[in-house]
Amino acid sequence: MIIICKPDATEEDIQHIIQKAEKLGLRVNISKGVERTVLGFIGPEDVLRVIPLEVFPGVDQVLPVLAPYKLVSREFQKENSVIQIKDDVRIGGEKIAVIAGPCSIESYEALLSVAKKVKESGATILRGGAFKPRTSPYDFQGLGEEGLKYMKDVGEEVGLATVTEVMDPRHVELVARYVDVFQIGARNMQNYTLLQEVGKTKKPVLLKRGMSATVKELLMSAEYIAAKGNFKVAVCERGIRTFETATRNTFDINAIPVIKQMSHLPVVADPSHGTGRWGLVSSIAMAAVAAGCDALIVEVHENPEEALSDGAQSLTPGNFKALMAQLQAVAQAVHRTF
Amino acid sequence: MIIICKPDATEEDIQHIIQKAEKLGLRVNISKGVERTVLGFIGPEDVLRVIPLEVFPGVDQVLPVLAPYKLVSREFQKENSVIQIKDDVRIGGEKIAVIAGPCSIESYEALLSVAKKVKESGATILRGGAFKPRTSPYDFQGLGEEGLKYMKDVGEEVGLATVTEVMDPRHVELVARYVDVFQIGARNMQNYTLLQEVGKTKKPVLLKRGMSATVKELLMSAEYIAAKGNFKVAVCERGIRTFETATRNTFDINAIPVIKQMSHLPVVADPSHGTGRWGLVSSIAMAAVAAGCDALIVEVHENPEEALSDGAQSLTPGNFKALMAQLQAVAQAVHRTF
Amino acid sequence: MIIICKPDATEEDIQHIIQKAEKLGLRVNISKGVERTVLGFIGPEDVLRVIPLEVFPGVDQVLPVLAPYKLVSREFQKENSVIQIKDDVRIGGEKIAVIAGPCSIESYEALLSVAKKVKESGATILRGGAFKPRTSPYDFQGLGEEGLKYMKDVGEEVGLATVTEVMDPRHVELVARYVDVFQIGARNMQNYTLLQEVGKTKKPVLLKRGMSATVKELLMSAEYIAAKGNFKVAVCERGIRTFETATRNTFDINAIPVIKQMSHLPVVADPSHGTGRWGLVSSIAMAAVAAGCDALIVEVHENPEEALSDGAQSLTPGNFKALMAQLQAVAQAVHRTF
Amino acid sequence: MIIICKPDATEEDIQHIIQKAEKLGLRVNISKGVERTVLGFIGPEDVLRVIPLEVFPGVDQVLPVLAPYKLVSREFQKENSVIQIKDDVRIGGEKIAVIAGPCSIESYEALLSVAKKVKESGATILRGGAFKPRTSPYDFQGLGEEGLKYMKDVGEEVGLATVTEVMDPRHVELVARYVDVFQIGARNMQNYTLLQEVGKTKKPVLLKRGMSATVKELLMSAEYIAAKGNFKVAVCERGIRTFETATRNTFDINAIPVIKQMSHLPVVADPSHGTGRWGLVSSIAMAAVAAGCDALIVEVHENPEEALSDGAQSLTPGNFKALMAQLQAVAQAVHRTF
Repeated sequence: MIIICKPDATEEDIQHIIQKAEKLGLRVNISKGVERTVLGFIGPEDVLRVIPLEVFPGVDQVLPVLAPYKLVSREFQKENSVIQIKDDVRIGGEKIAVIAGPCSIESYEALLSVAKKVKESGATILRGGAFKPRTSPYDFQGLGEEGLKYMKDVGEEVGLATVTEVMDPRHVELVARYVDVFQIGARNMQNYTLLQEVGKTKKPVLLKRGMSATVKELLMSAEYIAAKGNFKVAVCERGIRTFETATRNTFDINAIPVIKQMSHLPVVADPSHGTGRWGLVSSIAMAAVAAGCDALIVEVHENPEEALSDGAQSLTPGNFKALMAQLQAVAQAVHRTF
Repeated sequence: MIIICKPDATEEDIQHIIQKAEKLGLRVNISKGVERTVLGFIGPEDVLRVIPLEVFPGVDQVLPVLAPYKLVSREFQKENSVIQIKDDVRIGGEKIAVIAGPCSIESYEALLSVAKKVKESGATILRGGAFKPRTSPYDFQGLGEEGLKYMKDVGEEVGLATVTEVMDPRHVELVARYVDVFQIGARNMQNYTLLQEVGKTKKPVLLKRGMSATVKELLMSAEYIAAKGNFKVAVCERGIRTFETATRNTFDINAIPVIKQMSHLPVVADPSHGTGRWGLVSSIAMAAVAAGCDALIVEVHENPEEALSDGAQSLTPGNFKALMAQLQAVAQAVHRTF
Repeated sequence: MIIICKPDATEEDIQHIIQKAEKLGLRVNISKGVERTVLGFIGPEDVLRVIPLEVFPGVDQVLPVLAPYKLVSREFQKENSVIQIKDDVRIGGEKIAVIAGPCSIESYEALLSVAKKVKESGATILRGGAFKPRTSPYDFQGLGEEGLKYMKDVGEEVGLATVTEVMDPRHVELVARYVDVFQIGARNMQNYTLLQEVGKTKKPVLLKRGMSATVKELLMSAEYIAAKGNFKVAVCERGIRTFETATRNTFDINAIPVIKQMSHLPVVADPSHGTGRWGLVSSIAMAAVAAGCDALIVEVHENPEEALSDGAQSLTPGNFKALMAQLQAVAQAVHRTF
Repeated sequence: MIIICKPDATEEDIQHIIQKAEKLGLRVNISKGVERTVLGFIGPEDVLRVIPLEVFPGVDQVLPVLAPYKLVSREFQKENSVIQIKDDVRIGGEKIAVIAGPCSIESYEALLSVAKKVKESGATILRGGAFKPRTSPYDFQGLGEEGLKYMKDVGEEVGLATVTEVMDPRHVELVARYVDVFQIGARNMQNYTLLQEVGKTKKPVLLKRGMSATVKELLMSAEYIAAKGNFKVAVCERGIRTFETATRNTFDINAIPVIKQMSHLPVVADPSHGTGRWGLVSSIAMAAVAAGCDALIVEVHENPEEALSDGAQSLTPGNFKALMAQLQAVAQAVHRTF
């Protein structure tokens, strides 16, 4: 922690801060400049972070030195994490995982049909929502447990691992019985109750970035899960909210290499939500692979016109197949495989 | 719903859309312009909103005509809502309600002391967090039920209504036993599980705007609560996230008159989170009253230096008292009272 | 300047940085923490600011201690600046200045008529655009020099000071002949050529904040003008660009008290551009006064339906008169006058 | 143009709007819905765009049907534009152009040295600033005409086309004498004076997106240039300003395919400004190629530690060479070449 004092900070102000810090077991390095005094604290920064140093008299700025996350940081673990999902299905490592399927689970037949096709094209994990976070209370809210059953059955029949969103901490156990990976949606990235609940399980978690969350906050939310003992977290860039209205969200491509520098966790890219328009999904999927993502999650629907949610951003199985073919070449170019 | 077709939309494309709409019971108004055809749908727009019309061949843009919220709209109810909290404590109407207290409940004594002082200065509702949504899993997470008990006891002793944040749907009943008003925090504005749970109660709800939520989305979240039968919702502007880093958030003063135009719900202003710096709180509190807010929520702490959370944005009881005196004159200027 | 080194920075890395700094005449304070070394530089920070310290091996973060602006800072001058415009017309000080008039100058008669009315209601400075920065090359671009002549004549006839936008550095001299105050528009806030050109004159400058400029950048642009010798700069908050689409811009009310803390320059508020909708202008004008602005600039048009630009956000003279009456009471409440 | 009336719009209100439109030569299509009336205008939308229809009584929303730009739109020209720069140097088409060089021109020798190296690695256009838009008036402002001369001499000696920024409309002619392509910087994207001045020349223009400009506004600025007769415009995505502070800007990768859909102009990607950190430049350059850009502009400096500007985001010639090798494979994967 570094404190930059105000130009008119008195000696008394400075001593007051120093005493506070020393009482907490920190040593203080004092640097008196021409215009301002700068204080550097040596010792465990955590004890200081909870003190509102900004309100101490004479304090102008408070600058943390250390990242507030630990377990998920690159410093904590130098090697990339690889999350084992099932058999030979993993997220992380040289092979890029592909997660595909409908936004919502609509029926057993529809799920089975699309599952077979995405598997054929190279997907290894099936996605599909049983509990849907809809902006409007009047929109389709998902099939609930029935949807989870379809997910389990289809996953087993076709041979795909499965991921679905959990929104309610009371459903964690239920969802865990049916699927292989929890998804925490963007709107719940800072639902700490839910993060802690999945943190207590041993299931892998796909944690989506909140639409106005910084990369640092995303990693803090991952830390919440890890702090409960579950290190199997993959973080997902799915577009952020900006002033631009030409697309549903602005896909933050920078976040991919940035997170890889800051953290050992695998990074998933979601070009479907990242753009909101199916005609842009392929371009952004290719960009994400070129930028170094470890997995893709793509919405695929047999007939987007009939989709109960997110039809506008869903690929048809045919378009998905074409995308997978193109992606092979891009992956090779960056020394990865599918 | 209006559809603007692409310049190269074929007659077949247009008929395909019309058939879909007519099957759903809508009439279609066709307007063939020089360059493009525009389709207007007459009838209940809801049935169309769930169809991903953007993916139909020939469609360029889909423009909704009606607001997606109903119960909370100004059209649904012309008169301003007034929420009865307790005895003569209300939010809404000519009298501006003042909610004040510490960010976190830290001890019975501390809460009692600050409660007496804020009441003396004119507050009618006591705020204080028992369950705290902290960005870091290592920060103080609140006293839990013990804090709720202090809240109830202090509220009764001093004669203040009480509000506290609820984060977990499993805690709704518990919290309801102790306090008068639920607060839904900014991070949970789209935690639909939680919204529905408080919607099933009869308790007033203070719903905070998410840090990147539009005014429309805020009203949609209020609609979630109202749709479950609980109309006692006050919405709270508490600053949004923008590129500006000089303040913790950017207080969206425009939102106050905008929401008053769109909705009959009372609007609460939170200048503490809206600025993040205690030295700015008074200016923004006065601005919010001048702009027409129905209530203020302000963080007050006996000794901000020792606060376990949000010390940087807390007023001392003395500063709060001075603010209340200034606010009287501003309220009068806009024909309101405290 | 403070440098936080990477955890794995070598002694050689650190010496390399220190040598660089010492060569530039700075002393270095070294603070070796448990995990990281922090370097503080003592001496004129300017010489370091141009060095890309971020690329030096072993450097993690570079944190400036001093604000990059000087002449416009509160530290440079403790007292508020008061800009003398003409006779008893000033911006700054206890009396709040009101600038009003049409977006564009459309004809002599129209300007004269609106000028008389805004003066009657209490405005002291007439605004009106002769050169218009329009997003579309096909929109009305202003009357040019003819408009300037109208401005001068009307200003003299009615007894109002005048302000108009200058967009082209080649027009600075021309505009100076006709009006009392230069306006630099939001789109030109970082048009350094133009800033320097008006900085060479002795005329007051109304500098608008760019739509995505931070407060710090706004002050840096003011510094550009001051650095050329012209200290008569008033900075104007006119709304920033955010994700919110309910209003044309988001009026950053926080910026008013923030700038007053950081700088001695007077702060002007523009509720017309800050909202983009005439029905919101009065609420935000009152809020801005309550928050401490030194002047208001408001678009007024005899017949907004016929306005050649910005009709949607223009008040009628009748609405403006009503606003001025309301503002009196708000100003009194904060110990100011009109 | 479509107008959605308020629910309480009177017949008189509606007739008033219709009369206005018919007077301007438009036909009106009236669609009376259950709750609201919708008006569609048939005829040249331009004449309506300048009318502030939002202020007409009874009007709720005004929705334009047509894009405000014409000459640069994909509808105006189906085929991709290819801009001929010099000999066999082009921007647009299958071959991806690479523009490289230092941020600022610092000396003849330095420019010559870096020019040789970037050419060797595959660049065809040399970049370098002679007039620098610096946030601070105290920072290095560029070598001016002397720098332009170095640019011309080095370009000829090494066999590279050249591009440099022009900031002052009075310098257009001067700059045109020395370099092959004008660059309009992000801060000047809406400096209409400057846009019109380069529009009057026949030189190609590299137009950078303003840091908070929408894609639509970027195309409107390109339209300004085209409307003056100069169609040789390439638009450049260089990162936008968002709430994320981990990178200098947020590179809007979506903008690449979006612009390609909306316009026939070539799209240039600037990963140097788009990230602000040299360690991220290569990842984003590869992503931009995968997403379909037509050219890259990359800052390269012999010794970033000594760069007079933008050192933090400059590649060394060695890193640039390595990047070019990697890019070959990515380009092939998307059927492009370098």
